Amino acid sequence: MRIQEIGEDGLIKRIQKRINPANNKVIVGIGDDAAVLKTRADKLLLLTTDMLVEGVHFIRGKISYRDLGYKSLAVNLSDIAAMGGIPLYAVISLALPCDFEVEDVDAYYEGLEEVASDFGVAVVGGDMTSSPRDMVVNIAVVGQVGKGKMVLQNGAKEGDLIAVTGKLGGSAAGLCVLLNPHIGFPSPWREEALNKHCRPFPRVKEGHLLANTGKVNAMKDISDGLAREADVIAQASGKMLVLDAEKVPISSCALEISRVLKKDPLEMAVQGGEDYELLFTFAPEDSRILSEVADKNGFSLYVIGKVCPGQGVFFEQGGERELLVFKGYKHF
Amino acid sequence: MRIQEIGEDGLIKRIQKRINPANNKVIVGIGDDAAVLKTRADKLLLLTTDMLVEGVHFIRGKISYRDLGYKSLAVNLSDIAAMGGIPLYAVISLALPCDFEVEDVDAYYEGLEEVASDFGVAVVGGDMTSSPRDMVVNIAVVGQVGKGKMVLQNGAKEGDLIAVTGKLGGSAAGLCVLLNPHIGFPSPWREEALNKHCRPFPRVKEGHLLANTGKVNAMKDISDGLAREADVIAQASGKMLVLDAEKVPISSCALEISRVLKKDPLEMAVQGGEDYELLFTFAPEDSRILSEVADKNGFSLYVIGKVCPGQGVFFEQGGERELLVFKGYKHF
Repeated sequence: MRIQEIGEDGLIKRIQKRINPANNKVIVGIGDDAAVLKTRADKLLLLTTDMLVEGVHFIRGKISYRDLGYKSLAVNLSDIAAMGGIPLYAVISLALPCDFEVEDVDAYYEGLEEVASDFGVAVVGGDMTSSPRDMVVNIAVVGQVGKGKMVLQNGAKEGDLIAVTGKLGGSAAGLCVLLNPHIGFPSPWREEALNKHCRPFPRVKEGHLLANTGKVNAMKDISDGLAREADVIAQASGKMLVLDAEKVPISSCALEISRVLKKDPLEMAVQGGEDYELLFTFAPEDSRILSEVADKNGFSLYVIGKVCPGQGVFFEQGGERELLVFKGYKHF
Repeated sequence: MRIQEIGEDGLIKRIQKRINPANNKVIVGIGDDAAVLKTRADKLLLLTTDMLVEGVHFIRGKISYRDLGYKSLAVNLSDIAAMGGIPLYAVISLALPCDFEVEDVDAYYEGLEEVASDFGVAVVGGDMTSSPRDMVVNIAVVGQVGKGKMVLQNGAKEGDLIAVTGKLGGSAAGLCVLLNPHIGFPSPWREEALNKHCRPFPRVKEGHLLANTGKVNAMKDISDGLAREADVIAQASGKMLVLDAEKVPISSCALEISRVLKKDPLEMAVQGGEDYELLFTFAPEDSRILSEVADKNGFSLYVIGKVCPGQGVFFEQGGERELLVFKGYKHF
């Protein structure tokens, strides 16, 4: 049976069923943004890994090596952020085609170090190998979270509000700019979109502050697009998520770039991935506490929907409610 | 400048110079078999990662997916063993070509689970992506070691004896069998060599027991061949390692396979990699303690040389001493 027949989700569920570690130190295993492990009494260890493959996640020549270094670590930190944790250590594996230049490796590590130093992460090792054809990057990050402070994907409760930490669609707009080099997109939207795509900002501080309120019931970073990530929370929590189309915040650059391309900006915001904002749910009575945390720390919260009984993700627009089908990138 | 001009070692040193985490919790960063991190008072955390790329580390069709799963985790556990540690958790990244079969993913995980369960390692997460052409596997493993019990590569002392935990060359012999399918190698050597190559046994118990004596000064696993790994210890410790050619233990299968191929079995044992035995040094007066530990726990120690003042790795054979040049696989 080809992988396409069961898809990425089917494959992961299949592996998850097979691998069920009978280990009382594994608090959360396969399936969430990061694994949660009990190594000491007061803190839990987080462990996450992400692989970026040339031709799938990036195109050499379309993204600078510096940006690739930045992005490859940032996306891992985003997974730790989604648990409410703090990233600590990273190990980097690089598979490099033989024609690779040393200066490009330097540039890759410059970008990586930029994020590492901004977020206090120590790069402590890795692996370096040749690759016959494609460049591949894998990063694993260890983080920690206070006991009782972590937030999982499966905690959404009926009646919860759903919110995101920032505007969406910017990264997808940036990808459109990269893939259409001959179109003269207007400044500064062109640059803003490219920046969103190539240098996503992991919401580590935001995730940690939100989790520390103890009021967030479910959280996930938006790596594969709102439609898909909302579905992850819906499935994990056994609930229905209803999103209000008019409330989904759209990046200005996504509005402008989609105007040039005659695309639907809402589609960009909902189906386009890699914005790395946090998507989370909380009880309506905790709105004020969470808003205060956001205000005090200089970040935004956009309420975009609510958690209902049932299953699936629905989109409400002009009084109509329809199933939100994921149309973004599928690996298989 | 092309990577070939400075090679893998040059590249790693260049990265090591750039990345120097000013972090008092990083006991050992880039360069050893695993990073050593201080997360609690009595135990140190170990973190290691290894990437296997199709066409470089394995050839699809030449190794079964079950064996690939086994080997890909085993080589990571070997890095933890080389520190004297105990492996605890693993995360698995797989990049799979789109024509991949679900049953092959199953087989991969069967092999992986075999090692995981033998060594008490919990597989707690990972990443799954498509790959345009080559299959790539990356594993990261978290382990732990008692404070003061870890063994690094840089501790070899003048006068130390050098030993290995098992016979060498078996994996290289297995690779020869794989690459020469039309040669009728004799049984059981053919099967033994294939087993050594496809299912290397990580010396976790041995490394842990040896390290726990407190008598091992430097340790490394033999992934890239004795010549290269001895050089790693020599360079890290600032010492000369002199190996006695007549004392290097050679696997029976390497002797038999090399006879058929009219190759030098000693070359196979010294230059061929992936035996995953441990290479370590200790003071001569501690020989008895270490031999007793080995005897009591059913493993072997072969003393193969001594640590001298100077630098480099030398081979003594018939009273002659010559520089041992690494002739094994180079990534760049």
